[in-house]
Amino acid sequence: MVIKKIALGITADLHVHLRQGKMMELITPTVRQGGISVAYVMPNLTPPITTIESVKKYHTELSKISPETTFLMTLYLCKDLTPELVEEAAKLKLIKGIKCYPAGVTTNSQAGVDPNDFTGFYPIFKVMQEYGLVLNLHGEKPSIHSDIEEDDDDDEREEIHVLNAEPKFLPALIKLHSDFPNLKIVLEHCTTKEAIEAVDKINQQERKSSSDPVIVAASITAHHLSLTIDNWAGDPINYCKPVAKLPSDKKALIKAAVSGKPYFFFGSDSAPHELCNKSKHIGVCAGVYTQLYALGYLAQVFEKHNKLDKLKDFVSTFGLNFYQLKDEDIVCKDTVSLIKEEFKIPELLKNEQGDIVVAPFKPGETLNWKVEWSQN
Amino acid sequence: MVIKKIALGITADLHVHLRQGKMMELITPTVRQGGISVAYVMPNLTPPITTIESVKKYHTELSKISPETTFLMTLYLCKDLTPELVEEAAKLKLIKGIKCYPAGVTTNSQAGVDPNDFTGFYPIFKVMQEYGLVLNLHGEKPSIHSDIEEDDDDDEREEIHVLNAEPKFLPALIKLHSDFPNLKIVLEHCTTKEAIEAVDKINQQERKSSSDPVIVAASITAHHLSLTIDNWAGDPINYCKPVAKLPSDKKALIKAAVSGKPYFFFGSDSAPHELCNKSKHIGVCAGVYTQLYALGYLAQVFEKHNKLDKLKDFVSTFGLNFYQLKDEDIVCKDTVSLIKEEFKIPELLKNEQGDIVVAPFKPGETLNWKVEWSQN
Repeated sequence: MVIKKIALGITADLHVHLRQGKMMELITPTVRQGGISVAYVMPNLTPPITTIESVKKYHTELSKISPETTFLMTLYLCKDLTPELVEEAAKLKLIKGIKCYPAGVTTNSQAGVDPNDFTGFYPIFKVMQEYGLVLNLHGEKPSIHSDIEEDDDDDEREEIHVLNAEPKFLPALIKLHSDFPNLKIVLEHCTTKEAIEAVDKINQQERKSSSDPVIVAASITAHHLSLTIDNWAGDPINYCKPVAKLPSDKKALIKAAVSGKPYFFFGSDSAPHELCNKSKHIGVCAGVYTQLYALGYLAQVFEKHNKLDKLKDFVSTFGLNFYQLKDEDIVCKDTVSLIKEEFKIPELLKNEQGDIVVAPFKPGETLNWKVEWSQN
Repeated sequence: MVIKKIALGITADLHVHLRQGKMMELITPTVRQGGISVAYVMPNLTPPITTIESVKKYHTELSKISPETTFLMTLYLCKDLTPELVEEAAKLKLIKGIKCYPAGVTTNSQAGVDPNDFTGFYPIFKVMQEYGLVLNLHGEKPSIHSDIEEDDDDDEREEIHVLNAEPKFLPALIKLHSDFPNLKIVLEHCTTKEAIEAVDKINQQERKSSSDPVIVAASITAHHLSLTIDNWAGDPINYCKPVAKLPSDKKALIKAAVSGKPYFFFGSDSAPHELCNKSKHIGVCAGVYTQLYALGYLAQVFEKHNKLDKLKDFVSTFGLNFYQLKDEDIVCKDTVSLIKEEFKIPELLKNEQGDIVVAPFKPGETLNWKVEWSQN
C-alpha cells in the first residue's frame, strides 16, 4: 500500500536555534511552516540567556512572532547561573532545561563549561534533578587544534579532533548520570555509533519495563541522517558541529531514529547562518538550517527505510513524553500531517528586505512530503 | 647555535599545478619566487595533457613565462594514451613521467582511471618501465558519496570515504609494484600513517644498501605537515584532496619528511584556485596554494622539530636523485638559500589586472624564512 498521508498529531522539535533580531524574525515562523508544534529553544544568543529576565524577554519576542508555536525555554549553563536562580526559574515554570556547551565547540559557545570537570555545577544539577529540569548536553570534548605554533610533540596529551570529540565525551556523560541518577539528560545531536550505543546501554541496563520513564535520552537531527564526512568536505553548507561522521555512524543514527525506542527522539539542531558566513574560505560558521523542511527531510529517510510507521513516535510521542508536556502546555492544538507531494527546495530563503539570506539544507533538491496543518 | 641561513642548492618541487591562461601567468613565476629550481608539472588541464603536441605547447608556454625554471613534464594517464605515444614521448625526452588520477577524486580528474583495475594500462607501464619513466599515483580510491537517493543498505559494498580512500588504495600500489618491480612509482601527496608505512616497508624489504636506487617513493606536501581535519573543517582554504587526516597521521608525515630517508621527498601539490571557488557554500574546489612560500612553510616545520639539517635532502637531493636529473637538464644553475627573517604572508595574491585572486596558505600568518637566490 502506498502511503499518501501521515498523521503526526502534535509534533516537537526538541533542539532549535531561533537566533535574534532580523534572523529571528525570518526563522521563527519556519518552525510552524516546517510542521512543528513545540520547539525547544536553545539559549546561545549574544549574550547567552542566563537570567530570568532574558528568558522572559526571549519567550515574549518569539511568541509575538509565532503565537501558535509552543516555545520551551532553556538557560545557558555557565558561571553566571546559581542554584537559587535555577530554582526560581523552575518554580516560575519559565524553563524546561539548561543547555551545556563545552567552551568553544560551536556557535556562541565561548562562555561554555569545561567538560573535564562538571563538579563546579553540581549544586545546580542537584536543583535541576529536584525540579525535573532537563540537562541538554552538547556532547563533545573541545577539539585541540594543532598548528605550527603549537607543541604537538606531547604524546601524553589526549588528541581530540572533530571525529573523536563526541566519543571522548561519553565518559563524562556516564559519570554525570552515575552522580545524578535521576537527573534527566539529553545527549544532543548524536553523530556517532558510540554515542548511540552508550545511550542504548544506559537504557537497557536501567529500564526494566517499557513503561519505566526515560532518564537519559539522545536527540537526533534530520541532517545527520543524510550526511557523512564526504558531504561536508568541500560543501560548507553541510558543515556543522558536531560534524557528520562516517557511513557506519550514519547507519547507526538511522537505525536508532527508526527503532521505536523512546529514548531516541527528534531535535533538528536547525542552525541558520547568513549565507555570507557559509560562503567563506576561512572561518565558516558551523550549522545546517533544516527548520523549514524538517519533517520532509525526516520522512524521506524513514520512507526509504520502510519505517514511516515509526515517524510519529520520533517527532511527537517520545519527545513530548520525555519532557512531560501536558495539554495545557501546548498553546495551539492544531495537528500536523505530511502529504505525499513532490516539490523543489529553494536555493535560498530571504526576508522581505532581502538583507538576511539563508541557504536551506539540500537546496534545489526534491522532497516528497509537504506539511499540512489541521485546526483543532 | 642559531641557524641564520640554510643553503639548499638546486631545489625541486616534484608536484606542482601551474594551470592555464591567466592563472598560469600569475602562478608560474611563483615557482622561482618560492625558491624552487625544478618543477614537476601536473597534466590535469582542461583538456588533460595527452598528446606530444600538448606537452610541447605547455612546456613552451611555461618556459616563456619563467625561463629560469626547469619544468619537468608529464602526461595524463587515460584511454587516449598508447604505448607507442608514450615511447615516442620518452625517446624525445619530452616527459619524465605519467600521472595517474583515479576518476573523480580531485580537480580535473574526470578523465581518470579506475584504480580497481589497472590491467588495461599494463602495456603502457611496460614501456614506462623500459624507458625509466615515473608513474605518479594519486593514491585514493574514489569516494562513494552516500545520500538519500542512494542505496546505502548494501553492507557488502566497501565503504570508501575521504578518510580511508588512501589506505584503501595501498593494495593497488603493492600489486602494481609487484607486477612491475622496476617501474619507478611515486605515491603522491601522502596523507596517512598507513601510506608512509607502506612505502617504508617496500623500501626496507628491497633496498639492502643505502646506495640501492629507490624504485617506490612518496612525495609529501608542505601543507599536510601543518594541517589536520580540524583545520579544514570550517576553513575551505585548507580543503584539498587527499584531505588532511588526524593528528597521528600528521605526525607520521613529519617523521617521514625529516627522516633523511631518500624515498620521502618534497612535492608541494600546490593547487591554486580562484578565491571565488574557495569562498562558496557548495562545491568548493579542492586544493591548497603553497607555491610562493613553499620552502618557508617547510623550513618552519623542520626548524620546530630541530631537523633543519635534513631540509636540503628533502627539497633537493632525494627528489633530483630519484628523477635522475643531470646537470644538463637544469636550465639555470642558480642556487637557493633560506635566510632567517620574519615576514607576514599576504591575505591574497592577485594579478596586475586584479581579475585573478588566489588566497595563499596561512594568509596573514608570520613566516621566519625568506628565499634568496645566488647566481651561478
